[in-house]
Amino acid sequence: MKLNILGCHSATPLKNAHTTSQVLEAKDHLFLIDCGEGTQIQLRQQKIKLSRIKHIFISHLHGDHFYGLVGLVSTFRLLGRAADLHIYGPKGIKEVLTLQLKLANSWTDYNLFFHELEKKESEIIFEDDSLKIHTIPLDHRVYTNGFLFEEKPGLRRLDKEKIKNFNIPHYDFQNLKLGKDFVLDDGTLLKNKTVTLDPNPIKRYAFCSDTAYNESIVPLIKEVDLLYHEATFLNAHENLAVKTKHSTAEQAAKIAQLAQVNRLVLGHFSSRYREKNNFIAEASPFFDKVELAADGKTFDI
Amino acid sequence: MKLNILGCHSATPLKNAHTTSQVLEAKDHLFLIDCGEGTQIQLRQQKIKLSRIKHIFISHLHGDHFYGLVGLVSTFRLLGRAADLHIYGPKGIKEVLTLQLKLANSWTDYNLFFHELEKKESEIIFEDDSLKIHTIPLDHRVYTNGFLFEEKPGLRRLDKEKIKNFNIPHYDFQNLKLGKDFVLDDGTLLKNKTVTLDPNPIKRYAFCSDTAYNESIVPLIKEVDLLYHEATFLNAHENLAVKTKHSTAEQAAKIAQLAQVNRLVLGHFSSRYREKNNFIAEASPFFDKVELAADGKTFDI
Repeated sequence: MKLNILGCHSATPLKNAHTTSQVLEAKDHLFLIDCGEGTQIQLRQQKIKLSRIKHIFISHLHGDHFYGLVGLVSTFRLLGRAADLHIYGPKGIKEVLTLQLKLANSWTDYNLFFHELEKKESEIIFEDDSLKIHTIPLDHRVYTNGFLFEEKPGLRRLDKEKIKNFNIPHYDFQNLKLGKDFVLDDGTLLKNKTVTLDPNPIKRYAFCSDTAYNESIVPLIKEVDLLYHEATFLNAHENLAVKTKHSTAEQAAKIAQLAQVNRLVLGHFSSRYREKNNFIAEASPFFDKVELAADGKTFDI
Repeated sequence: MKLNILGCHSATPLKNAHTTSQVLEAKDHLFLIDCGEGTQIQLRQQKIKLSRIKHIFISHLHGDHFYGLVGLVSTFRLLGRAADLHIYGPKGIKEVLTLQLKLANSWTDYNLFFHELEKKESEIIFEDDSLKIHTIPLDHRVYTNGFLFEEKPGLRRLDKEKIKNFNIPHYDFQNLKLGKDFVLDDGTLLKNKTVTLDPNPIKRYAFCSDTAYNESIVPLIKEVDLLYHEATFLNAHENLAVKTKHSTAEQAAKIAQLAQVNRLVLGHFSSRYREKNNFIAEASPFFDKVELAADGKTFDI
């Protein structure tokens, strides 16, 4: 998995501070998560092939997380897109998108599918052979979901050295990868684990923005490889965090600690802070594998 | 008057090509005309004081002319705006804006007034002591208006040299500016024009985008000081101009010629053209006082 941060700032786009949007490359997919104003420009700037995006996940309907969506949907049409596009987001997202397309009298030539979310419990919203995606119900001023991207275990891997010792035809390799034992020419049973290795470990990425401090998400994001958690404020403005249902850097770190995640990335910074290193300073006493998001930064998971 | 081009490209925003938006400074006003995605970033980049914008004019509801509006309206709220905001645009603009604000549960704290347009004839949509604004009905795929910004004649100006020859108290100057004659101490009548000059000539700016070639606008924009006319295409793509109800550079120049305007500025360029000078080359045989718009360029009127 590879995470590409297109924007990680709160409230309103500035010249060098884009609002929330990120691309997760996972297996053969390119998932777009949130889509603040100007996301399509950021996608081009990061040289991301727009046609590879087939699934867009919108956490909530605040402008800094979705005002770029209708423009992107329109641009897909102008580019002659033929592939289906799936949009996952809170109830209402279909009405507002279709109203805008109707007023512009410019329906998409490709198929546009809306998957409107309204459940308060975590649910699986996408699944294929290689991965599944769960919602992470968050606690914000409007209905909001984070998203958990979870790879499925792959096939067992052939142990190239050990397999040389046996006379196994290539066309039986797939059965070995599926975990089956093998009967040798002399009739003895070769246990699968003798010649195979465990599948590569699965990767899990959790996106949690926007949210107040909310321990109820901990079981859902337990031990993920990477947690992106919003940290709009520093401790000096904890009162604002409470009032606006956002988190501080310290609170994000405490969630990471409770969930024993592997790495924490902080984002959704308020524009009031010039010096971003204070976010690290306040988070690291509670969770030290912490990094800052930045527009254009990528994270290998 | 001073025109500040924030964006002058068609269809979809690119890294260095913003969609339509411009600011007209006229008398004490700062009028925003159209508001493509990312306009708020362009406003900041041009160091335009957002709070000075009190009236926004939207030509039509295609995304490249208004997808930045809801973000700007939201940002005004975040900045603690108190002043009223007036939005003029096609019927439907109120529904789409209010739906988005409703879904975000973030109503504006300031007063937001919608002036929805649906007439097919030119009408006055704004008037105060210093200027008035008319719609210019255009011919596009959806209901579209251009806008004519017209200063009102100012007061007569005192001729400082000539006025010294008469004994006129200062408190009578205002009457002279209003064009009244003056009775001197000896009872003789001093004709107003003896001591005053004509008012400064009025300025008129016409914004015409998007539109097919449409001679019916000529009487409305007759002899304006500056005409901004869309020129999406060059002659090589005249068929596309017809099909999409846009204009070529030559057609824009022919309108400027018919209307005997003082200056023509071309804009709304299709991104297919790298070499913008071809727009000048194709327009100038028909109207030679022609210039190209560019993002960030200003024009003194």
